[in-house]
Amino acid sequence: MTKRKAAILGSSGMIGQRFAHMLHDHPYFEVVAHCASDRSRGKTLAEIWKLSDIELNPELAGQTIRGTAVEDLAREGVEVVFSGLPSGVAGDVEHGCAEEGMAVFSNASSHRTDPDTPILIPEINHQHLSSVEIQRKRRKKAGFIVTNANCSVTGLAVGLKPLIDAFGLHQFNVATYQALSGAGYPGVPSVDTLSNILPHIVNEEEKMNSEGRKILGGFEQGQFVDSPVNILASCTRVNVRDGHLEAVFANKPDMPDKESIVSVLDGFSSRPQELSLPSAPEKPVIVRPEPDRPQPLLDSLAGSPKRARGMAVTVGRIRTSADSLRFFLLVHNTIRGGAGGSVLNAELAHREGVL
Amino acid sequence: MTKRKAAILGSSGMIGQRFAHMLHDHPYFEVVAHCASDRSRGKTLAEIWKLSDIELNPELAGQTIRGTAVEDLAREGVEVVFSGLPSGVAGDVEHGCAEEGMAVFSNASSHRTDPDTPILIPEINHQHLSSVEIQRKRRKKAGFIVTNANCSVTGLAVGLKPLIDAFGLHQFNVATYQALSGAGYPGVPSVDTLSNILPHIVNEEEKMNSEGRKILGGFEQGQFVDSPVNILASCTRVNVRDGHLEAVFANKPDMPDKESIVSVLDGFSSRPQELSLPSAPEKPVIVRPEPDRPQPLLDSLAGSPKRARGMAVTVGRIRTSADSLRFFLLVHNTIRGGAGGSVLNAELAHREGVL
Amino acid sequence: MTKRKAAILGSSGMIGQRFAHMLHDHPYFEVVAHCASDRSRGKTLAEIWKLSDIELNPELAGQTIRGTAVEDLAREGVEVVFSGLPSGVAGDVEHGCAEEGMAVFSNASSHRTDPDTPILIPEINHQHLSSVEIQRKRRKKAGFIVTNANCSVTGLAVGLKPLIDAFGLHQFNVATYQALSGAGYPGVPSVDTLSNILPHIVNEEEKMNSEGRKILGGFEQGQFVDSPVNILASCTRVNVRDGHLEAVFANKPDMPDKESIVSVLDGFSSRPQELSLPSAPEKPVIVRPEPDRPQPLLDSLAGSPKRARGMAVTVGRIRTSADSLRFFLLVHNTIRGGAGGSVLNAELAHREGVL
Amino acid sequence: MTKRKAAILGSSGMIGQRFAHMLHDHPYFEVVAHCASDRSRGKTLAEIWKLSDIELNPELAGQTIRGTAVEDLAREGVEVVFSGLPSGVAGDVEHGCAEEGMAVFSNASSHRTDPDTPILIPEINHQHLSSVEIQRKRRKKAGFIVTNANCSVTGLAVGLKPLIDAFGLHQFNVATYQALSGAGYPGVPSVDTLSNILPHIVNEEEKMNSEGRKILGGFEQGQFVDSPVNILASCTRVNVRDGHLEAVFANKPDMPDKESIVSVLDGFSSRPQELSLPSAPEKPVIVRPEPDRPQPLLDSLAGSPKRARGMAVTVGRIRTSADSLRFFLLVHNTIRGGAGGSVLNAELAHREGVL
Repeated sequence: MTKRKAAILGSSGMIGQRFAHMLHDHPYFEVVAHCASDRSRGKTLAEIWKLSDIELNPELAGQTIRGTAVEDLAREGVEVVFSGLPSGVAGDVEHGCAEEGMAVFSNASSHRTDPDTPILIPEINHQHLSSVEIQRKRRKKAGFIVTNANCSVTGLAVGLKPLIDAFGLHQFNVATYQALSGAGYPGVPSVDTLSNILPHIVNEEEKMNSEGRKILGGFEQGQFVDSPVNILASCTRVNVRDGHLEAVFANKPDMPDKESIVSVLDGFSSRPQELSLPSAPEKPVIVRPEPDRPQPLLDSLAGSPKRARGMAVTVGRIRTSADSLRFFLLVHNTIRGGAGGSVLNAELAHREGVL
Repeated sequence: MTKRKAAILGSSGMIGQRFAHMLHDHPYFEVVAHCASDRSRGKTLAEIWKLSDIELNPELAGQTIRGTAVEDLAREGVEVVFSGLPSGVAGDVEHGCAEEGMAVFSNASSHRTDPDTPILIPEINHQHLSSVEIQRKRRKKAGFIVTNANCSVTGLAVGLKPLIDAFGLHQFNVATYQALSGAGYPGVPSVDTLSNILPHIVNEEEKMNSEGRKILGGFEQGQFVDSPVNILASCTRVNVRDGHLEAVFANKPDMPDKESIVSVLDGFSSRPQELSLPSAPEKPVIVRPEPDRPQPLLDSLAGSPKRARGMAVTVGRIRTSADSLRFFLLVHNTIRGGAGGSVLNAELAHREGVL
Repeated sequence: MTKRKAAILGSSGMIGQRFAHMLHDHPYFEVVAHCASDRSRGKTLAEIWKLSDIELNPELAGQTIRGTAVEDLAREGVEVVFSGLPSGVAGDVEHGCAEEGMAVFSNASSHRTDPDTPILIPEINHQHLSSVEIQRKRRKKAGFIVTNANCSVTGLAVGLKPLIDAFGLHQFNVATYQALSGAGYPGVPSVDTLSNILPHIVNEEEKMNSEGRKILGGFEQGQFVDSPVNILASCTRVNVRDGHLEAVFANKPDMPDKESIVSVLDGFSSRPQELSLPSAPEKPVIVRPEPDRPQPLLDSLAGSPKRARGMAVTVGRIRTSADSLRFFLLVHNTIRGGAGGSVLNAELAHREGVL
Repeated sequence: MTKRKAAILGSSGMIGQRFAHMLHDHPYFEVVAHCASDRSRGKTLAEIWKLSDIELNPELAGQTIRGTAVEDLAREGVEVVFSGLPSGVAGDVEHGCAEEGMAVFSNASSHRTDPDTPILIPEINHQHLSSVEIQRKRRKKAGFIVTNANCSVTGLAVGLKPLIDAFGLHQFNVATYQALSGAGYPGVPSVDTLSNILPHIVNEEEKMNSEGRKILGGFEQGQFVDSPVNILASCTRVNVRDGHLEAVFANKPDMPDKESIVSVLDGFSSRPQELSLPSAPEKPVIVRPEPDRPQPLLDSLAGSPKRARGMAVTVGRIRTSADSLRFFLLVHNTIRGGAGGSVLNAELAHREGVL
C-alpha cells in the first residue's frame, strides 16, 4: 500500500521533533517535508535536536528543515499535515492547509473551540471524528482539521473516562505537577524554576475544564454537546523535564472500592486497541501497585509496543474511602499529551477511511 | 527579668539549627546547652551549619555541641528543652526530661498521640495548653511535653482555622508539594529528586488528617475531642529546598465568594498576636493578590517582625464558584512547621504562666 | 554631612535590586530615583523583587520605579549614578549621564575598554581611579564613568593579586562553574540547565583574559598598561542560583608551599580595608581549611561586617606540589562581581575626594 | 558457537543494571545469574530498575535476583563474572571467583593497584591483558581479574591517548563536573546538590593521576611501568544525572594547531575497532564542532552502533594558542566509565583467546 505523503509544521520545536521521531518509518505516512520558521530553515534535524530521552535516528539526522509555504505543500501532493506550530501562528496556517484540501492533525489550541472541529482522543471519543464531514463541506477543497487536547487534560481524560462510564463520577479536584517541556522553548527561565514551584499556568485550569467537557461529551446531530463533568484544577509548573503528574480527587457517597477502581482502569480498552493502531498502547491505562509510583522520571515513557512508548497513562496510589477516591496519574506531555495524540488521531482517520 | 535556662536537643540537624537561630538573643530564654549525638559532639555550630538562607550569627558560631545527658541538664538547672531529635530517639529522651521536671517543646512526632499531650498551634488551640496540668500530675517532677504539629498540617491548619470557624467548611482535598528539608539529613537521594516528583511520603497523609483533627478539635473535661474535619491529602516530595506548597480544595453548596474568603483570612488574629509574643507574626495568614504567588522561593520566609520571619502562612490564587473553593497555601516547613512552632509554643507557655 | 544624591538605573533587574539593597541607608549616598524601562515603570520594588536570599527592606518595598530620563536626573541634582543597565543600552545612557556631569558607576561592559575608563577593583588597582581626571576634561560637564569588572574575573583577580605580587605567578588555567543569575533575566531556559552543564558563555573567556590584564596592569602617564598575566579560561554555566565557583591552576618551578600560599591570601588587605569603606570586607579573601569548601550554596554570601556580605572571595582546597598549585575560588557574582563592586568603587571615589 | 555462561554481581546497583542492559542478547555471553545482596534477593529486575534513560527490555523485566554464592556460580559452570559490587565488598568476592577459575571483569577499585592486575581500556592498553597470565599461575584454578578504570580517568585517558602519542603532551590540568550517578545509590543527599557544587570527591583526584599513569604506561617483563604523564585534577560533583564533563588544559611550547588536534582525535582507532568488538564504538572519540558542545544531557549517550551507545567519548570546544590547548571532554560515567568498560574488556579477552 502506498503511504500517504505527510508534512510536519513546527519542526524545530519539541512537538515537531516528537512528530519526526514517531512518524519515522511509519506504516501509513511518509514525511516528505520538515517545515519551520525562517530561523531554522536550512538546518538539519541533527543541528536542532533537543530531545535527550530518545535517540535521533541516523536516517533522520541529515534531513533539512524548509519553510512553511502552504501552496508548495499542496503542489507536492502532501495529504496529511502534522502541526506542532505555536498557537500564535497555527490558526491561519492550519486553516490554509485545510482549505487546500489537506487533513491537518494539530497540537495547537487555535481551533479546539471551533464548533465543527473535534478535540480527538481515540480511546474516548472516536465517534467525534465524524465532525470532519461538516468541515469538509465548508472548506474550499474538502480538507479538515483535527486537534489533540491540551497535555494535562489528555492524560486526565484517558484516566477518567472508564471511571465516569462505570461509576458515574463527574466532579473532580485536580492538582497538577507539570513538566518544563510543556512550556515549549525557551519556556520558563531557569532562575524561576530552580528550587521553586510556579503555582500558575496561564489559562491552563480553564482549558482543563472546557476541553475536558467537550472531549468527554457527545457529538449529536452535527453538534458537540458538553459532558456535565466538572474539573476543578490547580495547575503548577515544576522542575521536571518531561511528564505531567496529577493528583486526582473525587468525592461522592458510595464510592466503589479500590479493587473495582483498579479493575475498571486496568480493563479499559477502546477503538485504537480494537484496530491495533500502530501507536496505540496495548493498555491505555497502566495501574501500578507500588507505593511510590508513578514517577515522572521512571514512568513517563510507559507504553508498549515500542511505537507506543509514552502513549500509556500511568495511574498509581489509588486510595478509596466510603465517600472518596484519590490517585495519582502521569502522562507524557509531549507524546500522549502532544505529538503522539495527533499521530494516533491520524492513524484512526486513516483506518476509518476518513483520510 | 531573668531569662529561663534552655537547652536544644538535636543541634546538628536542620531543626536544631533553626532553634539556635530563633532562640539567639531571645527575650524569654537563654540557651545554655546545644546537645547532639556522639558524632557531632565537640564541633562548633559553625562547623556543622547547613542553613543557607540565614546567616549564622557570629556569637553563635563558636558555640560547642555537647552530648545529651538528661541528668546533666537537670543538674545545671535547665528548665526548658527544645527538641529537634529524630522520632526514633525522641520518645525516651523527651520523656526523661519531662520526668526530671523540665518543660519540653518538641518537633518530634513521638508524643503527639499521647492522650494528655497537646499538639499546640497557639493561633488555633491555645486552650489545649491546659492539658499539661494533667501531665504534671503523672510526672515524677511535674515536667511536661508540648509538641508542635507535622510541618504540612501546621500550615494547612493555620489557613483552614478561620475558614472553618466562619463558614463551617470541614471537607478538604489537599495535594502537597513538600520541600527536601522536610526529610531531614541526609534525607532524599539526589538521583531520586532530580527532574522528578516522588508521589509518596510515608505516613504523611495519615498524619495530616489525624493531627489536623486533634489540633482543630477541643479539650474538654481533660480530654482531647477530635474535630469532625476531614483532610484527604495526596503528598509528594519535590525538588525545592524549603517551603511546603499545598493546593487546597473545598466543595460545598453556597460557597462564600472570594471577597469573603479573603476578608476572613486577612483578618485572622489570635492569642499570640494579642499577647504580642516575640515570634508571633503580625498576621498569621498573608493573602497575596498576585496571579502567581505564593512561590516557595519567594514567600517561604514571609512574616514580620524580623523575629517572625518564616512564621506567617501565605495564601494565594483564591478561586471560588457557587460550590467550590480552591487556593494555594505555603508554609516554611522547618520554621512555622518546625522549630518556630515550638518556639512560639514556649513563648505562649511562658506568658500564660504555665512554665 | 549631607549624603550625595544618587540614582539607580536598571532597577528592575537583578543587579539593580542588589544596588537598592546595598545602598539602602548608606552612609554616603541617598538613592532618590529608581529608574527602569517602560515595562516596569510605575511598579513598586515589592512588585518586581526577584532576590530570594535577602529580605526586601520594608522601607524600600513601596518605592516606585520611574523612567530613565537623564535630563530629569540632572535637574534634580543627582550626582552619582549606579548603572545596572544591560550592555545593549548602557553605552549611550551612561555616556549621557557623564556628559551631564554625573559620576557613573557601572556594571555594564560597554565602557570597560574605553582608553580613559577604569575597570576598578579597589583592593587591586585603586590608583586607576585617577584616570577619571582625563575623562572629566573631555566631558561637557566634567562627569565620568567607572566600571566594575566582569563577574568571573572580579573574583579571580582578587584571589590572584596577592599571589602575583608575592610569587610572580602569571600563567593560569581556570575552569568556571557560573551561576544562573549571571545571565540576567530571563537568562537561560530551564530545559537547557536541568541535569546539564552548558560548556560555553559567549565572550566570557576572552573577557576574563583581557579585563584581567587591564585590571592587574598599571596606569602610567595617562595610559593603562596591560599586565603580562595570562588567564586561559574554560567557562560553563551550571544549575546554581548564585555564586561563581572557579577551579584555578598554576604551574611553575619552585612553587611555594601551601602554608605560604595560605599566609599570603589570608593576610591580603588593601586600600578599602585601610579606609574602612562601608562595603569593604574585613578580609577580601577568606581561606577555608575544610576539605569540601567553598560551596556556592554555603559560602557565596561570605564577608563581614553585615554591609559587606557577599563582598569577600572565598578560597579553599589549596593543593601544591613542587611545580603546581591548585585551588577553588568562589565569588558572589551579583554582589562582589556586580552591584557590590560598583558600590565599593563609589565609596572609594567619595573618600578619595574624586566625587 | 556456544555463548559463555556469565553472572552479574551487584545487580541491584546502577552499574549492575547497566551490565544487565548491555549483556542482554549479547553475541558472546549469556547471563545466567543476576546476583545481589540479601535486601534485593528475590525481587525482579523490574522492581529495582533505576535507569531512566534506557528501557528495561521486557525479557529482562521478570528475571529474579539471587544471592552471591561463589561456590554456586562455580558449580553451575559460570565462566565469566561481571562485577558491579561496591568497593567495600568487591575485594574478597572477586578474589574468590578468580580462585574458583572464573574470569572476573570488575568495575570496583579494590584490585586496580594489584601488581599483576590490569586496568584495561582496550583502545589504550590492550597489551596489558597479557598480565592475566601471571595471575592465572598464582590462582588456585587459573581464574583472573581484569578491572576497568575509574569513571573520570577512563574518559580522560581515551581522549588524551592519541594526543600523547602524536604530540608528546604529558602535563595536564583537569577540572571535572561529575554526575550524581557516579556516587552510586543513595549517593549524594539532595539538599547538598540542589543549587550547589560540591568541590571535593574523596580520593578522586589521586586516582585520576595514579590510574592514569598505570593505564597509559607499559607492561614490560611482567611488570606495569607507569607513564610519565602527570594529571593534576580538581574534581567536583554537579547536579547532573549522567555524564562526567571535564575541562582539560595542556601547556607547552609549540603546541600543534587546532586542525592537527582535531585530526588526531577524529582519526583515533585501535584494537577494539580493528576487531569490531560488539560494544566498540566506531569512533572512540567524537569531535563536535559546535560552539556549545559537549553537553551531558545531549551527548552522554554518544556512540554507534546501537550496542555502543554511551561508549564514545565526546570532545568539543578545542582552543589552541602557541603554547596552550584547552578543550572539554565528556564521558558517560556508568557506561564507558563503568559497566561498558568491563563489557568491552570481556569482549577483547574473548576474541584474543584469553577466556
